[in-house]
Amino acid sequence: MSDLPKSVRINEEGPREGFQFEKGPIPTARKIELIDSLGRTGLKQIQTVSFVPPKNVPGMADADEVVQGFTRAAGVRYTGLWLNDKGLARALASGKLDVKGSLSLTASEKFLRRNQKRTLKENIEAQHAMVKMYQEYKVPVDRAGLMAAFGCNFEGDIPIPHILDMIRQMLDIAAQYQLDLKVVSLADTMAWATPLSIKRVVGAVREKFPQLQISLHLHDTRGMGIANAYAGLEMGVSIFDAAVAGLGGCPFAAHSGAAGNVCTEDLVFMCEEMGIDTGIELEKLIESALLAERVVGHPLPGCVAKGGTLDRLRQKIREAA
Amino acid sequence: MSDLPKSVRINEEGPREGFQFEKGPIPTARKIELIDSLGRTGLKQIQTVSFVPPKNVPGMADADEVVQGFTRAAGVRYTGLWLNDKGLARALASGKLDVKGSLSLTASEKFLRRNQKRTLKENIEAQHAMVKMYQEYKVPVDRAGLMAAFGCNFEGDIPIPHILDMIRQMLDIAAQYQLDLKVVSLADTMAWATPLSIKRVVGAVREKFPQLQISLHLHDTRGMGIANAYAGLEMGVSIFDAAVAGLGGCPFAAHSGAAGNVCTEDLVFMCEEMGIDTGIELEKLIESALLAERVVGHPLPGCVAKGGTLDRLRQKIREAA
Repeated sequence: MSDLPKSVRINEEGPREGFQFEKGPIPTARKIELIDSLGRTGLKQIQTVSFVPPKNVPGMADADEVVQGFTRAAGVRYTGLWLNDKGLARALASGKLDVKGSLSLTASEKFLRRNQKRTLKENIEAQHAMVKMYQEYKVPVDRAGLMAAFGCNFEGDIPIPHILDMIRQMLDIAAQYQLDLKVVSLADTMAWATPLSIKRVVGAVREKFPQLQISLHLHDTRGMGIANAYAGLEMGVSIFDAAVAGLGGCPFAAHSGAAGNVCTEDLVFMCEEMGIDTGIELEKLIESALLAERVVGHPLPGCVAKGGTLDRLRQKIREAA
Repeated sequence: MSDLPKSVRINEEGPREGFQFEKGPIPTARKIELIDSLGRTGLKQIQTVSFVPPKNVPGMADADEVVQGFTRAAGVRYTGLWLNDKGLARALASGKLDVKGSLSLTASEKFLRRNQKRTLKENIEAQHAMVKMYQEYKVPVDRAGLMAAFGCNFEGDIPIPHILDMIRQMLDIAAQYQLDLKVVSLADTMAWATPLSIKRVVGAVREKFPQLQISLHLHDTRGMGIANAYAGLEMGVSIFDAAVAGLGGCPFAAHSGAAGNVCTEDLVFMCEEMGIDTGIELEKLIESALLAERVVGHPLPGCVAKGGTLDRLRQKIREAA
């Protein structure tokens, strides 16, 4: 009936996306509580913090304390984000994070200029510098990300040949440093994707670069997140970023309705109901989602935590029979 | 690449679903204002009210006044809902509604007992009585609906053979009265559907009853509404119910997160961005969605009204170039 994968891997980005985005302040202990709660759900990867200057992102001023504070659960990769050697050094110094490098390109030059004050060409040069830094610190690199891969608020629609060219450039950089790139993450940073464009872009990338696994990072600003994830699943995509309860959003995207990543528990619900194994206990994840709402102090966009699971209803029906 | 239809017809159910569900009270003039606003969007069908006893649904106590008050826009069908001859008589007496009959079955006996205090068998008998009533009033019937077609909070998963049997029974009734059933509406009344179950059920119904057009009525309680609509589109479904801003919900479904129908403007956004014509002006529909929020006095779940359209961003980019 379809190319739906048998299992998927979901990278939880709620803590990093959420604490970066929320006006806050959120007590460090509450951030740690959420990360520890997520560690008990069966999630295999949790992005905890970003190591960025507090003056840019005040919500990350306590990143080092957060990392020191949480308790590592067995079998979970705990990751962080950084943009330069200072951030990487902090991640390594923590001694608690699973540190891997990543190439990071952006499909839209206008977004890049605004977000990182670089041209496309300058960003390519910056990637060379990043790889050299990773090699100096002996940090492995097997992944690349492409931001704004489905469209940009400042540049508009992104032609597929341009996306393919960006990925070709990533592979060229990787080849120069003998890096074995395994995964390319396509990010719908500003929520321009529809299920059809997901299929077109994923299909084109898969056809051109069959050696790369594709991962999707989907924002939900226009309500397309879950539908876009489904389109990805139908194309055989089996790695997704997501944020518990729908935490977070991109503070640079310049629209009032900035919504976060696709909601983890809604994605897990869809996968599990369709027979796709996530390895995650949905009821426990819902506990984390409800905790996330208490931690940020306002409702978050996820639905399944409010609507409840079907398995719980099935159980009630069995018990009543 | 897919079986996506070239165009779809969206039946707006926001006023009826919303005013029925909201705790209210909402002034009659505000209800009329919303219906008139929707009439200017390009929508071809708007369900305005239900003619039910005020003691059951207080928000519909002013149904007759609402119908008298709105201004019919050219090319728009204005419909109402009723459950018996009293309601039908009110709809006909209004002189302003496009009155068509519909058979209405429910796949779950337990839901039927709770919602309408009938067994499946009693409901079949009730349909005979309804058809006789329609024939007495000379009201055409070309449509049938099946509630709880994808699952039920009280009965659980609904097997596909049972759904096919229910539709067979609908067609048997229609045949007895020489009715030409053209459309069957499959309703995910309690939000049990996933994109995969949409494909399975729609596929089975289409294969067994190729003479019937399928329409989908999708609730969004678990965040699957837009993904389910996309799955329907991929199966060639071209008729959808939807509610502006995501107004409404089913007051009988017994869950705290009762969410309304799939949001009209989010559905229109997805269709138009994928090249599927809706005939609807999205910016005008967003005005109606923002009005709907003001009318009910609280935020509603739709996303595109908050996130904004891509066409507006494209225009800004062109103007800046």
